[in-house]
Amino acid sequence: MRSIAPSISLTTNLNLIFYRRKREGKMLEKKAIFVVVDGMGDRVVKDGKTTLQLAKKPILDELATEGCTGLMYTLGPGIIPGSDTAHLALFGYDPEIYYKGRGPFEALGVGFELREGDVAFRCNFATVDDKFRVIDRRAGRLKDEGPVLASSLQDLTIDGVKVIFISSTEHRGTLILRGNGLSPDISDTDPHSPQKIPPLESKPLKKTPEAEKTARIVNKFVKKSWEILHSHPLNKEREKQGKFPANVVLTRGAGIYTKVDSLKDRYGIKSCCIAGSALYKGVARYVGMDILKVEGATGRIDTNIEAKANAAIDALKKYDFVFVHIKGTDNASHDGNLEGKLFMIEKVNRLAEILKDKTENQDVVISVTADHSTPICIKRHSSDPVPVLLYAKDLRKDKVTSFDEVSVASGCLGCISGIGLNRIIMDLMGCSHMVGS
Amino acid sequence: MRSIAPSISLTTNLNLIFYRRKREGKMLEKKAIFVVVDGMGDRVVKDGKTTLQLAKKPILDELATEGCTGLMYTLGPGIIPGSDTAHLALFGYDPEIYYKGRGPFEALGVGFELREGDVAFRCNFATVDDKFRVIDRRAGRLKDEGPVLASSLQDLTIDGVKVIFISSTEHRGTLILRGNGLSPDISDTDPHSPQKIPPLESKPLKKTPEAEKTARIVNKFVKKSWEILHSHPLNKEREKQGKFPANVVLTRGAGIYTKVDSLKDRYGIKSCCIAGSALYKGVARYVGMDILKVEGATGRIDTNIEAKANAAIDALKKYDFVFVHIKGTDNASHDGNLEGKLFMIEKVNRLAEILKDKTENQDVVISVTADHSTPICIKRHSSDPVPVLLYAKDLRKDKVTSFDEVSVASGCLGCISGIGLNRIIMDLMGCSHMVGS
Repeated sequence: MRSIAPSISLTTNLNLIFYRRKREGKMLEKKAIFVVVDGMGDRVVKDGKTTLQLAKKPILDELATEGCTGLMYTLGPGIIPGSDTAHLALFGYDPEIYYKGRGPFEALGVGFELREGDVAFRCNFATVDDKFRVIDRRAGRLKDEGPVLASSLQDLTIDGVKVIFISSTEHRGTLILRGNGLSPDISDTDPHSPQKIPPLESKPLKKTPEAEKTARIVNKFVKKSWEILHSHPLNKEREKQGKFPANVVLTRGAGIYTKVDSLKDRYGIKSCCIAGSALYKGVARYVGMDILKVEGATGRIDTNIEAKANAAIDALKKYDFVFVHIKGTDNASHDGNLEGKLFMIEKVNRLAEILKDKTENQDVVISVTADHSTPICIKRHSSDPVPVLLYAKDLRKDKVTSFDEVSVASGCLGCISGIGLNRIIMDLMGCSHMVGS
Repeated sequence: MRSIAPSISLTTNLNLIFYRRKREGKMLEKKAIFVVVDGMGDRVVKDGKTTLQLAKKPILDELATEGCTGLMYTLGPGIIPGSDTAHLALFGYDPEIYYKGRGPFEALGVGFELREGDVAFRCNFATVDDKFRVIDRRAGRLKDEGPVLASSLQDLTIDGVKVIFISSTEHRGTLILRGNGLSPDISDTDPHSPQKIPPLESKPLKKTPEAEKTARIVNKFVKKSWEILHSHPLNKEREKQGKFPANVVLTRGAGIYTKVDSLKDRYGIKSCCIAGSALYKGVARYVGMDILKVEGATGRIDTNIEAKANAAIDALKKYDFVFVHIKGTDNASHDGNLEGKLFMIEKVNRLAEILKDKTENQDVVISVTADHSTPICIKRHSSDPVPVLLYAKDLRKDKVTSFDEVSVASGCLGCISGIGLNRIIMDLMGCSHMVGS
């Protein structure tokens, strides 16, 4: 049947939340560190075991032993989560309501101040040949040339709409269209194809003047990017060096920005994000988290895990809810790299060790989970459920002694969703509200 | 929030699905054989054990040991599934949206080509006495007389609406009304009563001209059926032999047919059905499966299980998703027949043995489950959850070593719904899509 949970509009219940906090004049019952290990869930990879079952992770197992565990289908059984929708759910934001495309998260993730109604895109610098066919979707992966090339694409206005382009890491960038009457319902220009074909024409996905207008502007922008970039001195230089010139910008993941009620609005908590990759910072900003800058947090396998752990501990002084994102596990999974994934899980174990040691005398709930599985055998996101652990004073202690996908199935949290996990943590913090009386 | 799982309109996501398949140019990751053992779930029936716990089923236990298991509430906790709604859910079609009454499934199940807007009914040949009171709802269960009697009910037109009647097995049949302005919102004429009362008058359940018209036509048809059948030579003959004459047709389960997106539309897969009973073939046809004819598949306890197993293996050459339905367990349960139910489960064990052996070198996921429980102690469908197993290369291996209602509760699939199971299998096959990016 369509829905299992009673429908509880958090908006209409906002008054109740503050009512309770004000009336009781209470402090939070706990603070929280919420660790999401991207793509950590796996299927059998060796000797009948998953990566988590193979990994050395004594501290994670200790937290599982001392705390409580469960199994999580982030978006529901059988649904393959994207990174963006999974994190929305984990922050308590139903993707069905709050997901408006990936573009805005990318723009927020690079620190751009979006305004209501802006339409944003994920972009790549790419290479087209002299027949305007895409021969490298990543322009041979740029190093540091992105910002210089991006600066040549500034101050553009197309059909009365302001066009903003921002370079992020390597070949990646973000396009923002700002103006009246724009729509996110348009198709990608990125052909996503291994074949040599021209950039696709963006098409309206709905028959509205807004979608038609936005598609037209995007098509003009792609053409314009080529006109500007193909003769850019930096590209001439790259060609001389035998490198792919970054001579066109391709767009995808159109999304419209609308401001939403923040975690502070909802729960009265101060929250922050420690992450290396732009997307996760973007989703965190979308729900009102502050983004902390941590030296050495790269979003790659070389990330400085101790720096992230110490930053999280430090953040507890100022924040109630600290989100820590670990990306390397997912990268390793997409590459089919078991050694790399094991190495990253051992790093997460070290992170857990620092968090556990340094919160010993504080009332903090530590939660470790994944946003989704990325099984090494298929090198893609899958719907296989992920393990969850909660570790804090006074929590129920179940019989699970190993933190892995199989053991936690008999954990005392049962089988939950991403939104469910968020609500459980908010309640543990003492900042949730009773439904009814 | 509104719902745990985002409601994924498969219609709006169709582009994504095909997009992904096209872009990556990928083959399916696995094929699937989906075995539904009707009414297999039970409560305690002897020595503190359920029928599954009592049955000898070493291969099912082996599949559970080597694969992963879970507990399924097909339509949700506490909801008693009908056979039709349960199968809709198991095929991934939300009954809340796609269930339009049983009649169309019966008509599709006997091979009739329904058209959009047809209103179909389940029917019985029945016996009325000279005061027009129903004295046997099944006309003493016909043997082979159905088709001959049905032929006398052809070429009828009532109030401008075409009336089609088809005999199926024994006393059963299907009525189809074809014309403009019909409605399924009318009541049954079958009194479903052990008392001697006349056929009920069909009444509109909504105050619409369509419902009023349809009820009127049905009432005329029931009367007409008596006018034609009561003097039929074959009935005169039955009366001479002291048998109940099949002298009236009773209607129930009105439903309107609307074409839906098929499994092929949704997932690009070729699917087929191996079943003995009309209803299951009907639901399968509704979602676009081909119906395979298997000699000896009777839908009863005497079904030829080896023929069904071999047909399933054979079907893998041509099809991606093979649905195998086993009905005998449910019949035995409704009859309170423990021996019969045990016997059928042992037959299913043999089926599983053949499927396992003959798919050894293929990338096939074998799934065994039930549509609902039919506890022997109450002889009716119940909401008690049913066990699920998935067996395939690379799947997580949980600690469950017995395939029964109790053991699977700690399985690593957790607790899922029928639609959830369908989505999980579609993802395992590699034909599902990511939600978000």
